[in-house]
Order: sequence, then C-alpha cells, then structure tokens
Amino acid sequence: MSASLGAGSGVTDSVIYTYLGPEGTFTEAALLQVPGAESAERIPSTSVSAALEMVRSGRADAAVVPIENSVEGGVSATLDAISAGEPLRILREILVPITFVLAARPGLALADIGTVSTHSHAWAQCRNWADANIPQAEYLPASSTAAAAVGLQEAEPGYDAAICSPLVAQRLGLSVVAEDIGDITDAVTRFVLLSLPTSLPEPTGADKTTLVVPLPEDHPGALMEILDQFSARGVNLSRIESRPTGLFLGDYFFSIDADGHISDARMADALKGLHRISPNLRFLGSYPRADHREPEVPRHNTDEAFRRADVWLEGLLRG
Amino acid sequence: MSASLGAGSGVTDSVIYTYLGPEGTFTEAALLQVPGAESAERIPSTSVSAALEMVRSGRADAAVVPIENSVEGGVSATLDAISAGEPLRILREILVPITFVLAARPGLALADIGTVSTHSHAWAQCRNWADANIPQAEYLPASSTAAAAVGLQEAEPGYDAAICSPLVAQRLGLSVVAEDIGDITDAVTRFVLLSLPTSLPEPTGADKTTLVVPLPEDHPGALMEILDQFSARGVNLSRIESRPTGLFLGDYFFSIDADGHISDARMADALKGLHRISPNLRFLGSYPRADHREPEVPRHNTDEAFRRADVWLEGLLRG
Amino acid sequence: MSASLGAGSGVTDSVIYTYLGPEGTFTEAALLQVPGAESAERIPSTSVSAALEMVRSGRADAAVVPIENSVEGGVSATLDAISAGEPLRILREILVPITFVLAARPGLALADIGTVSTHSHAWAQCRNWADANIPQAEYLPASSTAAAAVGLQEAEPGYDAAICSPLVAQRLGLSVVAEDIGDITDAVTRFVLLSLPTSLPEPTGADKTTLVVPLPEDHPGALMEILDQFSARGVNLSRIESRPTGLFLGDYFFSIDADGHISDARMADALKGLHRISPNLRFLGSYPRADHREPEVPRHNTDEAFRRADVWLEGLLRG
Amino acid sequence: MSASLGAGSGVTDSVIYTYLGPEGTFTEAALLQVPGAESAERIPSTSVSAALEMVRSGRADAAVVPIENSVEGGVSATLDAISAGEPLRILREILVPITFVLAARPGLALADIGTVSTHSHAWAQCRNWADANIPQAEYLPASSTAAAAVGLQEAEPGYDAAICSPLVAQRLGLSVVAEDIGDITDAVTRFVLLSLPTSLPEPTGADKTTLVVPLPEDHPGALMEILDQFSARGVNLSRIESRPTGLFLGDYFFSIDADGHISDARMADALKGLHRISPNLRFLGSYPRADHREPEVPRHNTDEAFRRADVWLEGLLRG
Repeated sequence: MSASLGAGSGVTDSVIYTYLGPEGTFTEAALLQVPGAESAERIPSTSVSAALEMVRSGRADAAVVPIENSVEGGVSATLDAISAGEPLRILREILVPITFVLAARPGLALADIGTVSTHSHAWAQCRNWADANIPQAEYLPASSTAAAAVGLQEAEPGYDAAICSPLVAQRLGLSVVAEDIGDITDAVTRFVLLSLPTSLPEPTGADKTTLVVPLPEDHPGALMEILDQFSARGVNLSRIESRPTGLFLGDYFFSIDADGHISDARMADALKGLHRISPNLRFLGSYPRADHREPEVPRHNTDEAFRRADVWLEGLLRG
Repeated sequence: MSASLGAGSGVTDSVIYTYLGPEGTFTEAALLQVPGAESAERIPSTSVSAALEMVRSGRADAAVVPIENSVEGGVSATLDAISAGEPLRILREILVPITFVLAARPGLALADIGTVSTHSHAWAQCRNWADANIPQAEYLPASSTAAAAVGLQEAEPGYDAAICSPLVAQRLGLSVVAEDIGDITDAVTRFVLLSLPTSLPEPTGADKTTLVVPLPEDHPGALMEILDQFSARGVNLSRIESRPTGLFLGDYFFSIDADGHISDARMADALKGLHRISPNLRFLGSYPRADHREPEVPRHNTDEAFRRADVWLEGLLRG
Repeated sequence: MSASLGAGSGVTDSVIYTYLGPEGTFTEAALLQVPGAESAERIPSTSVSAALEMVRSGRADAAVVPIENSVEGGVSATLDAISAGEPLRILREILVPITFVLAARPGLALADIGTVSTHSHAWAQCRNWADANIPQAEYLPASSTAAAAVGLQEAEPGYDAAICSPLVAQRLGLSVVAEDIGDITDAVTRFVLLSLPTSLPEPTGADKTTLVVPLPEDHPGALMEILDQFSARGVNLSRIESRPTGLFLGDYFFSIDADGHISDARMADALKGLHRISPNLRFLGSYPRADHREPEVPRHNTDEAFRRADVWLEGLLRG
Repeated sequence: MSASLGAGSGVTDSVIYTYLGPEGTFTEAALLQVPGAESAERIPSTSVSAALEMVRSGRADAAVVPIENSVEGGVSATLDAISAGEPLRILREILVPITFVLAARPGLALADIGTVSTHSHAWAQCRNWADANIPQAEYLPASSTAAAAVGLQEAEPGYDAAICSPLVAQRLGLSVVAEDIGDITDAVTRFVLLSLPTSLPEPTGADKTTLVVPLPEDHPGALMEILDQFSARGVNLSRIESRPTGLFLGDYFFSIDADGHISDARMADALKGLHRISPNLRFLGSYPRADHREPEVPRHNTDEAFRRADVWLEGLLRG
C-alpha cells in the first residue's frame, strides 16, 4: 500500500488497482489514464460493489468506477455504493469518450443477426442505430459490454453479436461488422478513482468537490435550503442527482458535484452550512477537474473576503 | 376506443390496455387495480417504450408502466420515454407493495442453487438476503422478473432459480423455496396509467401534477429559479429527479411531482412561471393522489386569494 | 375640473393646482415644470396634508408635494399622507436641483449674523457651511424655507438671516450674503403630481410604479417575500423606505418605487403576488420616469413570455 | 471616565452623562432609568449631534438619545449621527411611554388658545386631538417639547400654549389645561445609551444587535442578499430602516436591529456574511433587549450546531 496515491495520485509500482471489469471495458481504459497505472497491478472486479469492497478491505489501494454517463446519467450502483458503508474518498476524475462497435460471430453480416447482447446502458445508447440497421435483432441483456464480447467466443454463445468497446473487440480479435454505432456521437463517461480517506489532493484552482447530502426528512423546502448554501457563497454546481434512500417513496439523498476545493474558504463555509442543515452529509473528496476549467469567484466570496471578515469579527469580539 | 378513460378513468369493456409485461409482473397487478381492467383486454408489452408506442399509435387506449420505486428510485426508461416523443397524459397513479419469492426448479433446495436469474432491479432489492442465504449463487440478468420465472419452465433454463412476484410464481405453478426475500419489507412501486392527451381528470382536492422541466442551459442558478416557482406559491414537491438529456455531461431535465391540480390557481400560476423560465417544459397530467392526502394551502395561496388579486388588478387597470 | 390631467398630464387653463407653499419654495419651482402650470391657477397650501386635502375634497385638481430628497431621504409627511386616507394617484414625477442662499436683513455681513432661521431639512443640508462660515449663529426652526425668508421682511423678525431658495430671495428682493451654500453640490429633490384616481398615464417604456405595502404583521421573513415578488419577475426597485404604521414599535409599511408600468405583464404579475401576501397594499400610480431611463427586461419576463405562458396554460386547461 | 459603564452599564458616581435636552424631556426620563444615573452628573445637550460629540470628545462617558418612535419611526438625526464619524457603541436600550399634556399661560382656557408651540414630532402625534379641541390654534415649531414649555415662562412667549411631557410641566409649575392628548394611547419611544467602543455587554439570551449596512451600490438585488444573511441563519430582524446616504437619489444605507448577540454563533456568522457583501458595515453593539424576549433558535442554527460543523470540517481538513 502506497502513500503516494493521496499526494496528487502519483503512484508507485507497488500500488494495486481494481476496476469494474472485465478487462477491456471503458473502465479499464479510464484506469489506464492514471499515471503509473499501466505498469501497476490491475485487478478487474465483477461489480462496482465488489471493486469498492476490495478497497475498503485493503486488498486494493484504489478503484476506478464509472460515476456519470452523458447519455444514461448518474451510475446508480456507484452513487449508492459510495453514499453508504465505510467512507471512501475520490482522488481524481477521468473522462473517457464512449464509442461502440458491433462485433459478430465469424461470417455473419448485419442481415444475419437475430440476437444481440450487451449491457443495457450500451443497448440504450445504440438503440436508434439498431432500429435502423438490425431491426430484426432481439436483445439479450449482459452484465457488461465486455462480458457480451467475451461470450461471443464460446462454442454456443446464445446470441449472434455483441455491442462493445473498440478496445475489447480488438483484444479478443472479434469480427467487427459496424463501427461507431452509438446514437450520440460525442458521448463521454466520467470515472472516479476512489481510495480510503487519505490526505487531500492539493487545490489547483480548478477543482471539484463531491458530496452526498441526505434531504432532511421533516422539512419542506429543504432542497432549496441546501442549494442556497452553495448559491449564497457563489459556488456553482456542475451535477446534482437525486437518489432514493430506499426507505420509503419520496425519501431522497442528493449526489452533488460543486466547483471548488474544501480548502477554498467559500467551499468550507458552504460545507459548514450544509452540515448544520443535514448533519449526516458525506464528503467524498476535493480533486482536480479533468477539464481544468477554473470557476469565476465573485469578489465577495474570495478567500481574501472571507479572511477579512474573520479579522473584522475577531476585532469586534476582542472589544 | 372509449371516451370513458379520461373522465375519472372509469372504463368500459371496449377499452384496450397494455402494460409492461410479461403477464404476472407487478405491473399487471397494478393494472388490475384500475376499475374495469379485470374484464378489459390487457396486452403485455415487452418494454416501456413498446407499451407507450401502442398508446401513441392508437393500438391501445392506455398503458400502465412503473414510474418510481421506493428502493431503486425513478424508473429511467419510463421517465425518459414520457419526457420525449408524442405527448402523453397521466390519468391516475397506482401503488403496489413489492414482495419477492425465490422460485426454483423442482427438487432444488437453497444450498443447491448455483445460478439465479431476475431483473437487475429485483436483484438489487434482494441482495442482502441472497448474500446471507445463497452466497454461492451467481447472478444472471433477465429482462423482467416474470421472464426469469417463465424461463424456469424451459427444458434447459440455464439457471436454477428465479426471483419473481408471488403472482407469477402462483400462476406458473412454480416451486417456491423462499418467500418475502426483499431486503426492504415495505417496498412499494408506483405505477401510472397513461393515455393520449384527453380531458383532464377532475380535481379532487388531493391531486398531483407531473412535469418534465428542462434546465435552461445558459443559466447558473436555474434549478433554484425552478424550485422557487413552486415554493413562492406554496406548492410542495413530492418527487424531484434529475435525468440527463443525453446531449452532454451535466445537461439535465427534471422530472417533478407537485402537490395540486392544474386547475388550482396556485398550480396554474406556478406552471406559467415555469413556462417563462423553461418554455419547453412538458405537462404530463394532473390526477388524484393514490393516498388521498390533501395539501395544506397557505392562506395567501388559496384560489380565493388569487381570485381577489385578479379582481383588484382588473379594477386598477380599468382606472 | 379637467379630464386633461389624467391623459399625460396635459392641462388646460381651467385646471387648479395646489402645492406645498408658500410661494417661492422649491415645490412651486417643481410645479412650474408641469406643462401648462405657468398659466394655471396655483394655490399654495400650508402643509402637505392641507395640499392633499384640497385634492381629496375637489377644491384642487392636482397637488405637487416633495416625496424624496437626495440628502434627507423620503419626505415622511408625504409618505404618510398618501399611504392612508382617500386614495390618490401619482401622475408624474419632477426633479428639481436644490441650491440654497443665505438672505440677511439689510446691512448685515456674515460676521454679524447671530440667529438664522430656515426649515430643519434645509438647515441639515447647510450645516457644514454654517459651521465653517457662521459658527456664531444660533438656529431657529421655521415651517419652510420660504416662511423664514418672508419673515425677514417683518419689522422684528426675531432672527438675522434666512436660508432659502434663490427663487424666493429674488422675488422678495432680499439681500443675499452667500450663494450655493448647500453641503452637497448636486442635491436634488423629487416631487410628485397627485390627483384623485383617474385614467392611468400611458406606458412609455420608461415608467415607475409607486406602492405602499404594509408588512404582514404575523410573518417573519415577510419583507423577503415582498422583495421576492419583484425579483422573481425581474422588476428592479429604485427606492424602498420603511415607515412606522404608528400602531406599535416595529410595525412598518414600505414605500416602494419599482421600475415599470402596471400594464407591463411582469409588473401586473408582481402586483398580484403582492396582493396575495399583503392584501391591503396601495397602488399609487404608474407614470413616466423623469430621467426616461428604460429598464432591462430579462428574456423570460417580457410581455411576450407572459403571453405565451398564458396561451400554453389555456391550451392545457381546454384539454 | 469609568470602566463600569461597559460591564453591564452599572455606573459609579464619577460617570458623566449627557442627553438630548433640555431638562424635562422624555430623553431625560429615559436616562433616569439607567441604574445610578439619578445620582450621576447629567448634562443636557442641544442636539443629538452635540450629545454624541461630547462622548466622542471624552467630555461625557455616555449619551442617551432617542432612536425610534412608535409613531414617527426612526429618529433620523440619531440614525445618521451614529452611522458616520467616530465609532460609538450602544450599551443598552430604554423604552419610555410617551404621553403629552397641553400647558398654557395662566388664566387661558382651551377656547382662548390662538397659537401652540412644540416640537414637530409631538405636534404630529397630537394632531387629531388638536383638530378636535383647539381647531382655531396655529402651530409654531419649537426645537423641543421642553423648549416650548420653558418659553411659556417668558414675558412675551409669542404663543399661548405648549405641548410637552408631564415631567417638564410639573417641574416648571405650568398650568396644564389638558392631559394625555396624544392620538396614540400607547405610544412609546426607544432610547439608546451610547459610549465609545468598550468591552461588550455580556450575552443574556435575549439580546439585540444593531448594525449600519450600506447597500453596495453597483448591485441590484443587494437588499435581498443582505436580508438573506440573516434569514439563512435563522436570525430575525426587529427593525429595518432605510436612510439616504445623501450622495445621490436612491443611494441608501440600512439601519438594522437583529435578534441576538455577536457572541452567538449564528449572529457572528451572519455578520461575517454581511461583511463580505458590504465591507463598510458598522457594528453598533450587542446589548440586552428591554423586553427580555428570547428568540426561538432553529435547531440547525444553535451554537451547538455551529460548533459541530466546525469540528466536522476541521476533521476533514486534517485528512
């Protein structure tokens, strides 16, 4: 286990990574963007929960899992898994463009394909193409795009084709009958690198903070109060998603990405305001934005404005 | 095609219903709660999209599909399908308690089960039970709980057991090896009855209005502005969910249930305010709450308060 | 009594005006800016209340009184007098630059002045000059600047000098010993022309609406609710002043000037919202801004945005 | 100069007080409520400015001046004088019920009174009584109610009667021809005891904090932002008044009384928020409420909620 993960996610050879497998998924492609990951040990996990469990139990130092998809939205399994259980910390985010190919059993043309298998999210993202090009094909759900691809190599796969990533099709040497079949041409998926709580990544000026905020149950208008904690300090939100707590209909928590680092005064102040309203909120990390975009900070929400206000108040209290 | 659907969802024998099939799912159980549905024609559809397409094309008068689950949250397929395409209208909501059984091939005990199949949502809701009672079992995704159950009757199902509703296990005469295996004991799923736009259900004093509100893209703080349209008129929200538009990361629409009927003055006023901010919002219907709970309306947001304000302003404008 | 007052405040010879006298005050200077006032009958009143009483009783068609002073703030007597009693309507506003002179009894130099009289507001506005130039002088309150000036002509005025407007000093032929003695060089006073309720001035695109809004007494946060009615419709406020109702400490009404005309959709909507919150609010008129400055109207608060929202809602309600 | 003033405003014999004179005004009655003031030196000042100047220059330890009147509203002279110049601090507030008598020259009955003198505020508060009982009387402004009373004792007062406090009429031995002539029967004036900045009065649980907050000039919606700093921390306002800065029409500062003490966490936090928005705000003191009424503090705005949020954030920042 290496201390180097926390400090800017630099890594050493002894670091063990896990990721949502199998090999060849977009998630492995995301992990390969982490400096040093190429030469590190990379263990595929069968589910998001399994990947996070490896980190929580210490069998892996960090895990890469998908958190948000430009087409399908938040990845529920990830949002739910990081909102409960042993606390984890996001160290970095990774963006991966998503493109799909249709791989088929040898010798089959588009018109011959009667059944196609893939993960339901991938199916949703290629639906228009499928309706137009293989309208005769029935859909068979698979647990991942890569699993569908791997299955094609079995003696009797039970289906004729798989929708998967170019990476896995290439690795497996599958016959690709159509490329770039996603309905949205610039689809992108956002992944996060998670570890146990460790020292915070340094602020870069272009950071993101991820939070899980339960909606206080006995409190109409509570969502507005939550949002107000950010807007009152000039903190923009780049993502907000509701997820059911599972306790009863209409009981939600919110998964939120906010622009800024916990060591920014305005973010620290917003977090304290949130804590008073919803004391069970969970801080999931402050880390550099993948797009390096810096926020505009209103003049009265700069660190300096906060510092001056502190000094002023101290002076008054001293009398 | 019967006009009787719109007017309070009373039905006649000639009405044709469709629902997210196959037979025996919780969705059919929901449909059977609609007065007259028992004796009406009920056609299962293979997907939410297919069910809605039957209504949009006129081949069915109305469809029942799940919209919200107390454990898994909003049903993305439904939220997305009703937010786009030909407009539809919600006529009523139906709540169905969700309980699961484990049905197995004849002669198998818990310890013998190596593979279990069901819909991924059902799997998620029985995960703790499965970890504790059939830890050896692998999971095989199915397109529905009922499909997994039906598959068990095949010569070679490819799995040993299915998680499904008590209804379908009973109908098919399956061997039930464990009952009530859901992790949450009072799980409930909310279904909606959808038709083409027709006359509005009458207000009952305990109604719900469902909306799809795109977040205006060039506008930070827009979510607060949207919420403010409700809170400024004393309208409570019972559900709010974000869904990606699919266009780019961070582009969302909101699916919202608000307390009240479009013919309530405060709701009409809130809707007009929303239309100004987000002109592409979609009204999906005002219909009676399944729980008949009436909202508290602040004194200055009653129909009477709105009427008096109108009269006052008219008087001023007349001079 | 002439109908011509209402329609753009054009006037005819038969119109009778009153104003806060005596002759030669800044108020008469304001009245003389009203088209046609020069040739109309102009009756000075001894107080704001008396001037308004003349209008309410029909003895005058319209009154000019000061409402806001850039140095002293809102003119309490006016704010209070128009907030209660028989309703009045503001037809136009008039801005008058305020300059003061020191008039003295014949033969007196600055150093000889032992007592100076003027209205307390004028005294406040010349205080720095007085401290620097006539530090020996005692102050004697007068009911108006003009009254102090007139008094100087008596046999035994009881004081040596008066602070008054250049106009009155000139008319009375007084000896002016210092000019432009106001501490603020660009002081300006805003006057309003008031009549009984009549047809509204036409909107010009650069209008102002004046309101009296009682703070609902049992309602903390009520002021924010009131302000929100404006900000939620993109209506800017150019003036807001609190005045006690006189009933008990801390019981207030607010006198508000907002940018826009009652026939603007956003203003009409804000007024209806205010009426629901504070049903006893009083509309004091919509009239052209003296500075002709047009407000910026956000895209979603234009008349067109309101019209489209109305049409959309009508369509939904028709079914 | 005594240190005993600051510590709970207990006083010693060596303390020198000043107040808005002359002797016998309601202000002296207010001062006499301060413990120890009866036996201390009490110097009347001729104006609010003069009283405050005595404190600022060290010639007096503390001054009592009126700040708010239930009928006439905020006392502009005081609000303006404490908002600028050398900083002062409010040590306590004092409430005095206001009743008026009509004192006349010996031998005069009501019907004989041709001219009546008093301060313009007192005149405003007795106007209805005067209209009903001495309609023939003309009004002559005086610089204070007590000055009008004193003047009656001169050989040729220039008027027949004075409206003044019972206290001064009794001290001077004037002939009182009507008692309790105020139009509002339970009128009350609020006075404040001001000193140079010193140690803060201890929090009592029922305190008030007085502030002067300039409206940031280039910022529409700024008033809402200011109010939001209080409401977001559950701090109620008991008084808010706008005053012109005197620089140009529409440029205001706000004089605010808020419930709570600067050493309450929610108030300290609100003050820091205000400082960021309007860095030139002025803190005028935290002191016990005269009515001892304690505020209701929402659960998430208690000192404990603030303390816990601080501890939580510290923990996160330590990593």
